Amino acid sequence: MFPQNAWYVACTPDEIEGKPLGRTVCGQPIVFYRSADGRVAALEDFCPHRGAALSLGRVCQGKLVCGYHGLVMGCDGKTESMPGQRVGAFPAIRAYPVIERHGFVWVWPGEPARADAALLPALSWADNPQWAYGGGLYHVKCDYRLMIDNLMDLTHETYVHADSIGQKEIDEAPVSTRAVGEEVVTSRFMDGVMAPPFWQANLRAHGLPADQPVDRWQICRFSPPSHVMIEVGVALAGRGGHQAAPEHKVSSVVVDFITPETDTTMWYFWGMARSFRVGDAALTAQIREGQGRVFSQDTAVLEAQQRNLTLHRHRKLLKLNIDAGGVQARRIIDRLIAQEQQPQAQPQVQLQAA
Amino acid sequence: MFPQNAWYVACTPDEIEGKPLGRTVCGQPIVFYRSADGRVAALEDFCPHRGAALSLGRVCQGKLVCGYHGLVMGCDGKTESMPGQRVGAFPAIRAYPVIERHGFVWVWPGEPARADAALLPALSWADNPQWAYGGGLYHVKCDYRLMIDNLMDLTHETYVHADSIGQKEIDEAPVSTRAVGEEVVTSRFMDGVMAPPFWQANLRAHGLPADQPVDRWQICRFSPPSHVMIEVGVALAGRGGHQAAPEHKVSSVVVDFITPETDTTMWYFWGMARSFRVGDAALTAQIREGQGRVFSQDTAVLEAQQRNLTLHRHRKLLKLNIDAGGVQARRIIDRLIAQEQQPQAQPQVQLQAA
Amino acid sequence: MFPQNAWYVACTPDEIEGKPLGRTVCGQPIVFYRSADGRVAALEDFCPHRGAALSLGRVCQGKLVCGYHGLVMGCDGKTESMPGQRVGAFPAIRAYPVIERHGFVWVWPGEPARADAALLPALSWADNPQWAYGGGLYHVKCDYRLMIDNLMDLTHETYVHADSIGQKEIDEAPVSTRAVGEEVVTSRFMDGVMAPPFWQANLRAHGLPADQPVDRWQICRFSPPSHVMIEVGVALAGRGGHQAAPEHKVSSVVVDFITPETDTTMWYFWGMARSFRVGDAALTAQIREGQGRVFSQDTAVLEAQQRNLTLHRHRKLLKLNIDAGGVQARRIIDRLIAQEQQPQAQPQVQLQAA
Repeated sequence: MFPQNAWYVACTPDEIEGKPLGRTVCGQPIVFYRSADGRVAALEDFCPHRGAALSLGRVCQGKLVCGYHGLVMGCDGKTESMPGQRVGAFPAIRAYPVIERHGFVWVWPGEPARADAALLPALSWADNPQWAYGGGLYHVKCDYRLMIDNLMDLTHETYVHADSIGQKEIDEAPVSTRAVGEEVVTSRFMDGVMAPPFWQANLRAHGLPADQPVDRWQICRFSPPSHVMIEVGVALAGRGGHQAAPEHKVSSVVVDFITPETDTTMWYFWGMARSFRVGDAALTAQIREGQGRVFSQDTAVLEAQQRNLTLHRHRKLLKLNIDAGGVQARRIIDRLIAQEQQPQAQPQVQLQAA
Repeated sequence: MFPQNAWYVACTPDEIEGKPLGRTVCGQPIVFYRSADGRVAALEDFCPHRGAALSLGRVCQGKLVCGYHGLVMGCDGKTESMPGQRVGAFPAIRAYPVIERHGFVWVWPGEPARADAALLPALSWADNPQWAYGGGLYHVKCDYRLMIDNLMDLTHETYVHADSIGQKEIDEAPVSTRAVGEEVVTSRFMDGVMAPPFWQANLRAHGLPADQPVDRWQICRFSPPSHVMIEVGVALAGRGGHQAAPEHKVSSVVVDFITPETDTTMWYFWGMARSFRVGDAALTAQIREGQGRVFSQDTAVLEAQQRNLTLHRHRKLLKLNIDAGGVQARRIIDRLIAQEQQPQAQPQVQLQAA
Repeated sequence: MFPQNAWYVACTPDEIEGKPLGRTVCGQPIVFYRSADGRVAALEDFCPHRGAALSLGRVCQGKLVCGYHGLVMGCDGKTESMPGQRVGAFPAIRAYPVIERHGFVWVWPGEPARADAALLPALSWADNPQWAYGGGLYHVKCDYRLMIDNLMDLTHETYVHADSIGQKEIDEAPVSTRAVGEEVVTSRFMDGVMAPPFWQANLRAHGLPADQPVDRWQICRFSPPSHVMIEVGVALAGRGGHQAAPEHKVSSVVVDFITPETDTTMWYFWGMARSFRVGDAALTAQIREGQGRVFSQDTAVLEAQQRNLTLHRHRKLLKLNIDAGGVQARRIIDRLIAQEQQPQAQPQVQLQAA
């Protein structure tokens, strides 16, 4: 169960470099490619002729050509031509609203008439020379909501990531969760602690001492359908923590775009945006490698959790204070899904489309 | 869905060299082996004692011996002996009509009484010193009818096999399809074109120039249940094309025996028979290698198509002129299946069996 | 279908050395670990907080700590603590009766009140300096009862293990089966035969001639739920066979603990206990390697048999005299399962628990 009327990250531009990409989003197989005008197109991955996967075809002069019999498909899902055929009566396939922004390709799997670029998240760190970004993509065999739970409750870092970003003080610091409109924010502040290995390395990279107490913060922001941005960082103790001047802190944004593939599998676009040593490509690579290792630890935990939940389908789980972030995020998701299923939603669509 | 009362290629003789072979044909697990008199036997792959797979056993002096407890099975499905046991009351297992001919082992999965060797296809190139043959076997995860469609519409060569046998002119030449009795023939003639890489190599191998225009032909013949023989070749332009004298052309028969394994998987026995440089084993090997590469390209396309059709089970596909060969072949297959399911078919069987 | 009120081998101590082990027994995912007092604990592999697999966690000072959020679980299935949480109202998870004995960890997947250490099998060779033991573990994709059948009818050795322990005389020697209480014993004596390769090697290892006739015996003992101990050996012919003095024979016990995982998969703990050259670790390793090879031959046969039986679900199998051991063992198993399903079994439990 996932909201369909929402923007999801489908892929990164390098994945459609010179060739189409087939990817299932919210249960729908979609082909993504860059069309003649340089814009990304997203269509059902289904050739109207015989059902071949269009993603196995080629992009020729910006047009998607089916790899089976050469049908040329338009970006609107209407067949443009096919050798030796009149194609006017060919059934159209579905075209999906798609936008390239912030270094990602976003797709709207629901009703096209509701798709609105203004609903894309604003990402201050993206396309911004003051920031550097590095990230990756994992395929994870779990319900996408388990990943949201995971990211909205960072007490797991102490256990899952003990060797990198975990530390005992995370458990001990109180956590606060609040919903602000459609956003859920969970924050935790740990003052006067020693930095864990990951942050020690970043302090050193930033020219700051790594052996002195720091003030550490984690501010997790969920926004629908399934994005979680986490402000994280450490400042030398007593310099204002999260609000400290740039020369006294290292901070970054953990970026998590979570795209359901099926009910029990998902695509995980993870990364980190940072505002220090922005031009240091080696540091970017090093952070990405470390983050990749951290997130593969989560993957193992979540896939085992999914197997357990599949086996014990009707078992109730606990909802503790630390789970409040995930619980409130799911409440928003449930409300969006319910709205989509209400029949009265229809007229509004028609008005928009008119 | 497949006709059961038909001869299917089950295996090649080398596959039962000195040992039994287990293979599922039309949903039925069957064990094939060479019996004492040198003839091939085909039985249910199920030991009547405890259900072991007989194909894991041994052939001892032409008898199939179960590898679990030594039961000796007769070619008729009746247990011959078992150490320390009286076997007279053992239930028989099913024996399948089976014939070795044309370099293949053929099995009849349907009613034994209807099996008739006269129904085997006549293959002029087989067991014929004027011809050479080379081929292979692929397991493909698709409905066998998708492979028939593929082979009865060679416009796909331009797209799937652009690097070997495809060329733009295939698309552009008109195609003609006709049903002759139970056979469907689709033919295409391309005059005065340049030969694609595969045929250039064969022209050179035949001592003919590869840089001059040729007349090219493709004549696809479907015969039930699922055989497709394709006459292909090129002649130096203006020498009579398909009818040109042997010294002006290179031609061959693409051989395709398509055997359903389950509703969505199949065995693909592919090969090429040629009447030039018949004694050149290196050429045979080279053609087989090239053909193997070509058919593995089809395999990838067909398996993705199958996944799409499984997901969109009720979606209608187009039937264009280029699809006529597959459409007409399916019509014959559907008629054969319907005949097998009619109750009035039964008396006829009993008469035959009497 | 398996009896739940029984002791099954769950693992060997080395498998829980310093870390928890997740293993499914009789359909129930269980985590095993060594607790603070050195005893083994067995719990549902399901964290009551969010359903994480406890087996992915850690054992810290003898306590099982969930690897996700640090919940500390007690050996009784009650949560002991969790950072920042009051855990008194947390739902308990199931704790399984578990005992470490004879070099194995035994679990009771059924009603805890019925678990009784006195029901563990007595194994004279275990924890006994007069005996040496070596063994291994295989995961086999078949109903555990197919393995019992296999071990209670050693005529299969002639066919499945022709290269090691099989010999023609096994088939030819009469077999005798009797049920003694809840035990089923199948025995076979072959006098004056040549030893097969496996026993020739053991005769030589024991300093006895390998090229002279021997008396060979096989005494298979099934005891519920699914243990099969097989006394096997050879004595120089005419010295009393099974009863011969130790200097004239080599003998051992083939040890088979069969633990259902699901209805169609199982854990196979196999091994051999011997009372000769007990201190010879190289011999132990050599026997284990040979036995591992022998049992992998069975595995291939049983998995193919399972696939056949799954396909032909309603087909009746034969029950010959050689099958009597398996047939009688299944009768006992069926009776135990039926007893567990009778409602009148309940009061007795409550009395025991009171």
